[in-house]
Amino acid sequence: MTTSPKTVADRYLALWNEPDPARRQALLDQAWSAAGRYVDPLMSGQGRDGVGAMIEAARSQFPGHGFTLRGAPDGHGRHVRFSWTLAPAGGAPIAGGTDVATLDDDGRITDVIGFLDGDVGGA
Amino acid sequence: MTTSPKTVADRYLALWNEPDPARRQALLDQAWSAAGRYVDPLMSGQGRDGVGAMIEAARSQFPGHGFTLRGAPDGHGRHVRFSWTLAPAGGAPIAGGTDVATLDDDGRITDVIGFLDGDVGGA
Repeated sequence: MTTSPKTVADRYLALWNEPDPARRQALLDQAWSAAGRYVDPLMSGQGRDGVGAMIEAARSQFPGHGFTLRGAPDGHGRHVRFSWTLAPAGGAPIAGGTDVATLDDDGRITDVIGFLDGDVGGA
Repeated sequence: MTTSPKTVADRYLALWNEPDPARRQALLDQAWSAAGRYVDPLMSGQGRDGVGAMIEAARSQFPGHGFTLRGAPDGHGRHVRFSWTLAPAGGAPIAGGTDVATLDDDGRITDVIGFLDGDVGGA
């Protein structure tokens, strides 16, 4: 893997946190494979457009909230694991989760399997 | 998913813990897809035979040790997450990890992505 787990996680969360649609699209193009897939207990998206629409929908559900990296990302081979919290600006986390991302040869995400961590916030 | 995350995890760990080769093969056939793949930071296996050989090699590295479920498995769709510890009989854990398994339509494992959890044992 040429990209560190920390960098993968930072880019991933920056995309979710980006309020500007054009910049979000640029981050999506950079970080995700065209055929990328996302699934967690609450939502799923297929293809870069599907993932982008899913992120936009999730953002609109939690206006003013942001994702923050929790703990240290780790990884091996094509796989990266990282944990996050979701919180309103200046507020306590309302949810947390752990995502496992798989990357292609170019370091772009092909799959994310997400889980909610019940010991963080209200998830 | 027709099989609960807890059942998937229990069957999975029972396979790793089974000392009898014939019974281990039967558990492997039951729980894993023929094309199943496993990868973690230390080892990998491809196909039911490859995964079986990998488990046998790992078991021979830690004679007298066993895997125990840690915490509550969770899952959604085709995906299950569970955590484990590895310990000698009656002893303290020497390692721990978290595995994410993906299942096929028959509930058999097609992929496991494993991670080591540094806060458990000496991993």
